[in-house]
Amino acid sequence: MPAPEGARIDRVVVPYDAREPCTRLSPVLGPDERREFARAMLADVLAAVQAGGYDPEVLATTPLDLEVAVTVDDRPLTPAVNDRLVPGTAVVMADLALATPEALSRLFETPGDVVLAPGRGGGTNALVTRHPEFRVDYHGGSFLKHRRIAEECGLCRSVVDSHRLATDVDEPADLVEVLIHGPGTSAEWLDEVGFGLDDRGGRLGLSRDGELVGASR
Amino acid sequence: MPAPEGARIDRVVVPYDAREPCTRLSPVLGPDERREFARAMLADVLAAVQAGGYDPEVLATTPLDLEVAVTVDDRPLTPAVNDRLVPGTAVVMADLALATPEALSRLFETPGDVVLAPGRGGGTNALVTRHPEFRVDYHGGSFLKHRRIAEECGLCRSVVDSHRLATDVDEPADLVEVLIHGPGTSAEWLDEVGFGLDDRGGRLGLSRDGELVGASR
Repeated sequence: MPAPEGARIDRVVVPYDAREPCTRLSPVLGPDERREFARAMLADVLAAVQAGGYDPEVLATTPLDLEVAVTVDDRPLTPAVNDRLVPGTAVVMADLALATPEALSRLFETPGDVVLAPGRGGGTNALVTRHPEFRVDYHGGSFLKHRRIAEECGLCRSVVDSHRLATDVDEPADLVEVLIHGPGTSAEWLDEVGFGLDDRGGRLGLSRDGELVGASR
Repeated sequence: MPAPEGARIDRVVVPYDAREPCTRLSPVLGPDERREFARAMLADVLAAVQAGGYDPEVLATTPLDLEVAVTVDDRPLTPAVNDRLVPGTAVVMADLALATPEALSRLFETPGDVVLAPGRGGGTNALVTRHPEFRVDYHGGSFLKHRRIAEECGLCRSVVDSHRLATDVDEPADLVEVLIHGPGTSAEWLDEVGFGLDDRGGRLGLSRDGELVGASR
């Protein structure tokens, strides 16, 4: 089914910082593990974009060996993304391990000059812009900033309400979501290295080799 | 617009435990505050249900003075809900302070014998059942349990992907979501008693009277 008029996108940019990924997972993952897990999440995001019929472009801080187009830009996220923000662009973060083609389609096909998928904690985990005036400003509550920027430019703004897109995986409690809502490369990787779900509390917690780990609940 | 065939619901039950609400918010709220805040969240949930054109019924552990129907049942959540689970029933938790009529409509109008809205941490924050065999089993990862129960009964099962419905507000970090995604009675209450957003970290944190509080980030 074609997307409704005015709800097209032409490009999907996936920023990826390979230098020190997932630092906030260091209570439960070593440095090599964090790199491997970040790559597994990137693979899940790219697979979800591709399954929806789009060709993702990775915007990486260092060269990467991938089977999709990679552009290298070592500047911070905000200027690197803004340089590529032509109308009809979607920006999807690389740590959305729960992303599915369905969740991304809802984002891509929602009409609006700017469509935002908020992350837990007030970030912007994914967005679409169809207007030349919109510019990103990541870090420190970017969802509220992006809403304000769109307002100030007088743009029509939509918000996509998705738990999958709201779950950027950057702290131990987020791994629980990956294990619950997999399957995917990331969930398989976690399972392979011994992580599991602990059901002794109100919310499910994270275990590794059977022992509760992290401030995960 | 009428709901599609096979996607009706007749009743919306909102369980509410008034005895010791929001205990996991005790790092940032005193006992009286927790009771007030729980009532504010209940008001937001009831308002969202009503704005969607439904009459909510509160299933409370003790008598409550409310302008909607209240049934008192002091048993634990699971048997109390199961006794009211006729086909065409929705069960919506009372701590979904971000619930909107739109998010609830997606739940109520999704076809399926059983429709689940997972909560962060593996709970079931809201559900719809249209089949007499389905029974709930809350606590300890109920989303996975409910998925399994539906499977074992051979029922057609759907999942609603909503950040608003996934956000049951029971720990300090969840208050950040209320402040970001309000307005509503709960967000206003938090604002009135001095809570705000702290943007000094990667995710937004929680402040009270300008000071960072709780393990909120």
